[in-house]
Amino acid sequence: MLPRTEKLAQGLLAGERVSLSRAITLVESTNPDHGKQAELLLDYVLKHKDPKLKRSLRVGITGPPGAGKSTFVEAFGSMLVDDHSKRLAVIAIDPSSSRTHGSILGDKTRMAQLSVNQNAFVRPSPTKGRLGGIAQHTNDVVLLCEAAGFDTVFVETVGLGQSEIAVDECVDMLLLVVPPANGDELQGVKKGIMEVADMIIVNKADGALEDLARHAAVDYTHALSLTRRKRKNWRPRVKRCSAVTGKNLTKVWDIIDSFSSDLHDEILEKRIKQSSTWMWAEFSDMVIRLGRENPEVNERSLQLLEDLREERISPRVAAKDLVSQFIRS
Amino acid sequence: MLPRTEKLAQGLLAGERVSLSRAITLVESTNPDHGKQAELLLDYVLKHKDPKLKRSLRVGITGPPGAGKSTFVEAFGSMLVDDHSKRLAVIAIDPSSSRTHGSILGDKTRMAQLSVNQNAFVRPSPTKGRLGGIAQHTNDVVLLCEAAGFDTVFVETVGLGQSEIAVDECVDMLLLVVPPANGDELQGVKKGIMEVADMIIVNKADGALEDLARHAAVDYTHALSLTRRKRKNWRPRVKRCSAVTGKNLTKVWDIIDSFSSDLHDEILEKRIKQSSTWMWAEFSDMVIRLGRENPEVNERSLQLLEDLREERISPRVAAKDLVSQFIRS
Repeated sequence: MLPRTEKLAQGLLAGERVSLSRAITLVESTNPDHGKQAELLLDYVLKHKDPKLKRSLRVGITGPPGAGKSTFVEAFGSMLVDDHSKRLAVIAIDPSSSRTHGSILGDKTRMAQLSVNQNAFVRPSPTKGRLGGIAQHTNDVVLLCEAAGFDTVFVETVGLGQSEIAVDECVDMLLLVVPPANGDELQGVKKGIMEVADMIIVNKADGALEDLARHAAVDYTHALSLTRRKRKNWRPRVKRCSAVTGKNLTKVWDIIDSFSSDLHDEILEKRIKQSSTWMWAEFSDMVIRLGRENPEVNERSLQLLEDLREERISPRVAAKDLVSQFIRS
Repeated sequence: MLPRTEKLAQGLLAGERVSLSRAITLVESTNPDHGKQAELLLDYVLKHKDPKLKRSLRVGITGPPGAGKSTFVEAFGSMLVDDHSKRLAVIAIDPSSSRTHGSILGDKTRMAQLSVNQNAFVRPSPTKGRLGGIAQHTNDVVLLCEAAGFDTVFVETVGLGQSEIAVDECVDMLLLVVPPANGDELQGVKKGIMEVADMIIVNKADGALEDLARHAAVDYTHALSLTRRKRKNWRPRVKRCSAVTGKNLTKVWDIIDSFSSDLHDEILEKRIKQSSTWMWAEFSDMVIRLGRENPEVNERSLQLLEDLREERISPRVAAKDLVSQFIRS
């Protein structure tokens, strides 16, 4: 490990937000030299983290565009930090455009109040065009935030179809934030959402939308009752709230809190499964890289592309050939 | 190759729909014995297919739920077969529920008229919870349909967020079918869609919705003009049509036809890139399987899971360790 990296690790373990921020940049880097340092840093940080740190709570927050997720996180997060003495890290997954590789949200931080709070840390994380809306290293980023002393971690992502399933791979509990609209309008994604959400939050239950929010909550409760349950020991809840007036935010926290204590063992079990999934996914990425960087495999792949061009073989048969070459090399 | 498989291959090459159907089932099977036969079948079929077959046209059809995609495919496909002497294969990607692994569409075929047409072949293809809405073997299925003499292949998928990008990996041209709604309602996914669609079809331009369809077409044309172009040599078109009255279906075909002839070289180039992508994706899947089936790698993974349980290492560092074990074995 470079002295620079070690210093970063020590700063992070001391809870310095600047070091945490730089460490995340290192872990998210696609530069191979950075990758090596990132692995050493992760190793050091996890081996040296304060053994007195309690296990954190990881909460995923997803929902369709326009549900007011950022506003909810800003209001709800500020409450947790100010009234419940939490130290909160928010990882906001930024769905980059897959073609331009540009960030949709841009560099502007949307959670102005939370980002300047001493006990909060807000970090946008680009997905770099990955499907599913979860960045490759989100799990590493979560581990770093926890080692820096953040006891509550939010992973926020836009819920477009199946991304809520991907975000569920990084968290203990998944909140779905929806606008106060008729349940029918969300028909296309409802089934998938209902199956993975541990709690549905009907946001914007204020002013002229109060009535609509109440109806929506009834609709969602009904839809949940028709849905296959995700966990045996947890009945998903529906709660109306307003990020603007603060209505019901405390009640939302009470539900999260009881989830966390009631499902202690289940959460541990889930984390093991998640770690295993992430480990094999990383294994896959690393092996692919090894394959692509192997000169003989590469040369063979160019020959196979000639056959593929003429459609004389299928990609699947070509892949089999590549694997044989990979094993021989 | 088993004699049974060879018979299947020969039936397929003779254009028999039952053989094609069984061959697809074999290719989609997750049983390892079937996998071996599937590879031999693909190899045989591509090596023995009629060299006089012209290159097919592969069209992706996506769009939000409720746009009337199936009805469009039924009406448009019937026209192609009846009036333009096409032989059409439709691969309808069925977004299975990721948790229950059940099929959402069920076994019922939605394209009643097309499925009984002698010159058409309709096949639902389950995604088995894969992200992106594209089945693992969709590309193989396309190759099989073409070898069976189908000169036009539709790949139909529900467009939920990023799946239209995934479907673009299997086709020459991508159609986006939208209902006659205000452009604003689709705001959340518009950017991604605009970037990948080669043509936007405003469906249901009939009866009471005619006016709305006209307005929507104007909105989409405007939005396209503000969007980064996907191809230098093709300006994406917007066309209103009605699957019910048949309005403009011929014009839709004229546009597809001119795309196919104008962009001949670009399509070939795109296919090579796609084949390469699929080859490496299959390579990845195969290597992972090798890793998981290797007893030493497996044993090491169990030890690593103990460390992961205690959060003493990160999944990424664990994966690195697994890769070393994999290389040694």
